[in-house]
Amino acid sequence: MGTKSNIGHGKALILKLGMAGLGRMGANMALRLLRGGHEIVAYDPNPEAVCSVETEGAMGTASLEELVESLESPRAVWVMAPAGAPTETTIRSLSNLLSAHDIVIDGGNAFYKDSFRRAAMLGDKGIEFLDVGTSGGIWGLENGYCLMVGGEESTYRAILPALKTLAPSDGVGLGRVGPNGAGHFVKMVHNAVEYGLMQAYAEGLELMSASDKFDIDLEQVAGIWRHGSVVRSWLLDLTARALKNDPYLEGIQAYVEDTGEGRWAVQESVDLSVPVPVMAASLQARFRSRQDEPLGARLLAALRKEFGGHQVMKPEVEE
Amino acid sequence: MGTKSNIGHGKALILKLGMAGLGRMGANMALRLLRGGHEIVAYDPNPEAVCSVETEGAMGTASLEELVESLESPRAVWVMAPAGAPTETTIRSLSNLLSAHDIVIDGGNAFYKDSFRRAAMLGDKGIEFLDVGTSGGIWGLENGYCLMVGGEESTYRAILPALKTLAPSDGVGLGRVGPNGAGHFVKMVHNAVEYGLMQAYAEGLELMSASDKFDIDLEQVAGIWRHGSVVRSWLLDLTARALKNDPYLEGIQAYVEDTGEGRWAVQESVDLSVPVPVMAASLQARFRSRQDEPLGARLLAALRKEFGGHQVMKPEVEE
Repeated sequence: MGTKSNIGHGKALILKLGMAGLGRMGANMALRLLRGGHEIVAYDPNPEAVCSVETEGAMGTASLEELVESLESPRAVWVMAPAGAPTETTIRSLSNLLSAHDIVIDGGNAFYKDSFRRAAMLGDKGIEFLDVGTSGGIWGLENGYCLMVGGEESTYRAILPALKTLAPSDGVGLGRVGPNGAGHFVKMVHNAVEYGLMQAYAEGLELMSASDKFDIDLEQVAGIWRHGSVVRSWLLDLTARALKNDPYLEGIQAYVEDTGEGRWAVQESVDLSVPVPVMAASLQARFRSRQDEPLGARLLAALRKEFGGHQVMKPEVEE
Repeated sequence: MGTKSNIGHGKALILKLGMAGLGRMGANMALRLLRGGHEIVAYDPNPEAVCSVETEGAMGTASLEELVESLESPRAVWVMAPAGAPTETTIRSLSNLLSAHDIVIDGGNAFYKDSFRRAAMLGDKGIEFLDVGTSGGIWGLENGYCLMVGGEESTYRAILPALKTLAPSDGVGLGRVGPNGAGHFVKMVHNAVEYGLMQAYAEGLELMSASDKFDIDLEQVAGIWRHGSVVRSWLLDLTARALKNDPYLEGIQAYVEDTGEGRWAVQESVDLSVPVPVMAASLQARFRSRQDEPLGARLLAALRKEFGGHQVMKPEVEE
């Protein structure tokens, strides 16, 4: 189809890209790019992860240095590392290894203000930067990824052939939403919306299961709602799937992690004075899920005893 | 295909049904049933609504009495009236017009405890009852309706050919979820989930639009999220559609109605002591949307002045 080239400045349809970070997301994205005909030079601190994508056709490397050396200028390196220190370390190293007109793409869940700073740091050396909010989870390999891109239009165009391969189908689920930082900003809000959607379904299913008047089959109801209802969604499809495997979710602990975006979104709402009651409540429900005998609830019980002589229960002591 | 019959006790695939109530939902459901080959005898207090479905092939009637007389025993009448008094009046009238083994179906958004009572009232006369939570809105004619059915298994089976025609496709988006009341109970929870989902999207879009760092194109972002993202859903499809027609929603007043199910679900959560912070916050956000200069906010401003001498603003007075 097109000329093979390192990046698409020459309107190549097939790119040669570095992929730094081969976790659940990075490895699948490397595979989707390989299946789309792109060349991938891969690196991960874990050699097994590198081996695994090598067997799928990627060129494995043992270090970021080797990865950069294996690409020709102008180089493009997609970073798919956990937010925080791993992303910071990787991008800092790349800023020392790459040259002007090379491109760094951060596809992780970085805080958008970190992306401002990283864009400036790379820009000082003439290195271009894209922050790409990437959604789709472990299903992205099969379904494609939703990609929210921040950065210069020309940089976006250079990488577009790879973005189109990663996206669900040519040209959908993909767009440049603004300058650097905008991609991660939109992804931050996306994930906070996700918290709210998940919490809404969670409350609905719990309310139905708690009824003393009916014996509602949650798996059946989730299955019915998937078709024709106003609440149908991909998260509902996954809900039905989870309930099919484990109708009472007995194999799942009621402990819910969060990875930052929900917190940042609530923080942003404070900065902008925008009320986000559902996002905030959803985040707090996750905090509460991790508590055992929280002091707040103990204080409420203690106060009811103090003013009203209401009975309190002693904490259960393990034998 | 099958034998034509009034209702499906004889395993007829084509039914003759009464449809009482031809509003936005009822008229479209009558059309979908007609297109599926069923015979419809229709009544609505508004003669124009009756005319409109007559031109599509229904037999119009001028009263509930005439509707009932136009059906042969055992009769089946689908009631599609607003919850509350219109549904109560219609079902009470039918209880006096119908006979043992006839069937009343309530496809509206009745409170499930009313459906308990109506099932008992009809049951006293040997009349069978189904409460059918019906979702799909004005899109149901084209896409089919999600149907959550409460009632006896045998009554459900008798009406199944019509339910299958109304459902999105044969056998999906449709099920008997329990005895009488269960259909409206599940629909109540469905709608409260819907409130939470809508509020989550609303907060996300408002947060993005409020940013002083980016000029996010909400229509573009909604369009991107529709494909491959974790937050993709039918409500998001509708969000993208609304923004396409009116990118800043300038033609829409910030005034949000509710129709009871959200309130009942929050009430149910109180009865069952189940925390539903997102459902409750979503309902309250709707209440707040209808207030202008609420006393609560005036009191907060007044108290800040009382204890801290903070400045207050006078209400704007219209000229």
